[in-house]
Amino acid sequence: MSVFLETVLVEEAISTIQAIAPVPGTERLSLEFVPGRVLSEDTRADIDIPGFDRSVVDGYAVRSADTTGAGEAVPAMLLLTGRINMGEQAAGHSGPAGSCVYIPTGGEVPPGFDAVAMIEYCELIGDTVLVKRPLANGENIILCGEDFHAGEIVLKTGCRLGPRHIGVLAAVGCDMVPVYRVPRIGILSTGNEIVPVTELPTGSRVRDINSYLCSSYVKEHGCEAVLYGIVPDERGAFRTALGTALAECNAVLISGGSSKDERDMTASVLQEHGKVLVHGIAIAPGKPTIIGLAGDVPVIGLPGHPASAFIVLTVVVRHLLDRMTGVQSAGPAAMKSVALENIPSMKGREEYVRVLVTEHGVIPLFGKSGLLNTLSRSNGLVRVPAGSEGVEEGDTVEVIQW
Amino acid sequence: MSVFLETVLVEEAISTIQAIAPVPGTERLSLEFVPGRVLSEDTRADIDIPGFDRSVVDGYAVRSADTTGAGEAVPAMLLLTGRINMGEQAAGHSGPAGSCVYIPTGGEVPPGFDAVAMIEYCELIGDTVLVKRPLANGENIILCGEDFHAGEIVLKTGCRLGPRHIGVLAAVGCDMVPVYRVPRIGILSTGNEIVPVTELPTGSRVRDINSYLCSSYVKEHGCEAVLYGIVPDERGAFRTALGTALAECNAVLISGGSSKDERDMTASVLQEHGKVLVHGIAIAPGKPTIIGLAGDVPVIGLPGHPASAFIVLTVVVRHLLDRMTGVQSAGPAAMKSVALENIPSMKGREEYVRVLVTEHGVIPLFGKSGLLNTLSRSNGLVRVPAGSEGVEEGDTVEVIQW
Repeated sequence: MSVFLETVLVEEAISTIQAIAPVPGTERLSLEFVPGRVLSEDTRADIDIPGFDRSVVDGYAVRSADTTGAGEAVPAMLLLTGRINMGEQAAGHSGPAGSCVYIPTGGEVPPGFDAVAMIEYCELIGDTVLVKRPLANGENIILCGEDFHAGEIVLKTGCRLGPRHIGVLAAVGCDMVPVYRVPRIGILSTGNEIVPVTELPTGSRVRDINSYLCSSYVKEHGCEAVLYGIVPDERGAFRTALGTALAECNAVLISGGSSKDERDMTASVLQEHGKVLVHGIAIAPGKPTIIGLAGDVPVIGLPGHPASAFIVLTVVVRHLLDRMTGVQSAGPAAMKSVALENIPSMKGREEYVRVLVTEHGVIPLFGKSGLLNTLSRSNGLVRVPAGSEGVEEGDTVEVIQW
Repeated sequence: MSVFLETVLVEEAISTIQAIAPVPGTERLSLEFVPGRVLSEDTRADIDIPGFDRSVVDGYAVRSADTTGAGEAVPAMLLLTGRINMGEQAAGHSGPAGSCVYIPTGGEVPPGFDAVAMIEYCELIGDTVLVKRPLANGENIILCGEDFHAGEIVLKTGCRLGPRHIGVLAAVGCDMVPVYRVPRIGILSTGNEIVPVTELPTGSRVRDINSYLCSSYVKEHGCEAVLYGIVPDERGAFRTALGTALAECNAVLISGGSSKDERDMTASVLQEHGKVLVHGIAIAPGKPTIIGLAGDVPVIGLPGHPASAFIVLTVVVRHLLDRMTGVQSAGPAAMKSVALENIPSMKGREEYVRVLVTEHGVIPLFGKSGLLNTLSRSNGLVRVPAGSEGVEEGDTVEVIQW
């Protein structure tokens, strides 16, 4: 039984992982619990917003026609007939031509008036208001429904709800918000060399970095992490742990299996449960990545080294998580920058080079790809396409900030 | 009693708000609970990482001198004397010159060997390994302590712990992590015109948007939000609510008070509790912002309109939250882009224009500043400096993405 497939291009790995992503369920939650969640239905305004003609300044509601030609020397002189209070209905405050009404910022402009003169450009003498500038029809007023019309879509399905969106939901009275459920991602660390973080590793043992790296990564991308701990490189133990994770989770990340023997075991046990779709991606670092499916549960085998695992999470697995959380996104927001040094590369595989992003451009952090310290020293990744032989100093590059 | 101070520049408002930020407390939490938290002490490696000479490939541990001149035609021929297993101590596997040992990725290189030949460039015939490329001293090995030396600082105070940092903490065995406590931010909405989100606003009433906008904003920036609900514009009620919030929180945000009367009340009640430091910032929108201090609790009065309030949160209040959470940051990460249209501006105040950030540049979203829909339609803010008369098409601009 061969579980070795051809190495695939990053693009193909991404489309494979997107194709197997389970469709997320939905639920309705109170507005206070949805920051960071993803909207599962288009949301519409229930009413016109604002629901009335609203003044955006403190001043006097006027008829603009009454201010034609007004200036410092010859102000318009209007009779003050009343005062609007906040939240008060203004219908009773209409007045004849030549009159005006005091109105605060946010107050309702009474029928008949079509502009608001800012208090800074007016003078009150007795019950007469001197208006020292001409006003245009509609000036300093937001009309009823000008912000949103009743029934208009205000936010679309797939929107990850940041503070601005939460504010818009509050405005349209969406107090029970339809959102996608949070997917559960199972995380297994494999390897006889792995010890718990609380232990002092002896000999050639290393601490379990990947459980924490993967769980904080999936949490950052809107998922719940379920940790299954460290599983020894032993077929029976691995089979049992994977079976439990498959039963309890919507997707499973297996980190570790750095050596060829371990990678073979991961792939062959996965084949018992389902099928291996990708075994090896043309990406550096990160080549020994496995993408498989057990029933309808995606199973991803990540490289054992944390730095490689993190690049595969950022470049490939992120697309799985985005689909599973329902977020509409074009993937990691890449920004453009300039290479401040040459970045050599081997043709035939996409390379992702850890970089320091500065104001002036990006500085590649070289050194052996297996170094963990490049994770904390870098603040971004530059992609060097498979067809390229590298990037030259001064070239424009795409940066994924992380 | 005058509570009106001079309008201050944005820069001065920021330094005022930073100066009054309370110093955060600290606590120690288990590694699994600290993603997104801020480190309160420099963290050091407890051991050398790796703790041994580690192979980064599957292959054969060799003496590089034994491979000098090796090639496809004339390979070096080495005697295979053993096999290293993952996690196994390699001391027993040393062999004489001319020998080699099988080693998996992540395995310990035995004493005496100084390079690892990748399996792809070797051929095994019986117990002889043909090595078809010459190797340099150290090739495919990460030396003991090469990643981090014992005692070396791996992460600094003020680091907000993303997945990469969590991975590094796991590597150095930092299972109880020193972090800053989460500050509690009290949030009050004022205004007689404000109704709860669950109500249908009648007349010139509007829903309580700011409670949700502010609470999700402070949560996004690492704080806990404590909601005190809607407080009517009445001195006694406002005094009581503010008193409660001051007693329970590390800072208080009062949103609303859009009209001059309400702003006066906020400022004068604040003066009973402490002092008003800033009353008005030269920023558009957002001018009617109050910065004050009651005892050691910062109190910020935000403009009533949500769009203006959000810009003040992003441009000014963010610096308070950064100080209170202990995060080391240069403020909002501004990126450079190009204006695709002219952006006119009034000299003398910093203007923040909501924009749509595209691949090609930024498109300003004009329209009345009081429109809420620009919050959901925009994805960034462009700053037009106080001394400028605007931005011309093609000019480089600084964008705060939001």
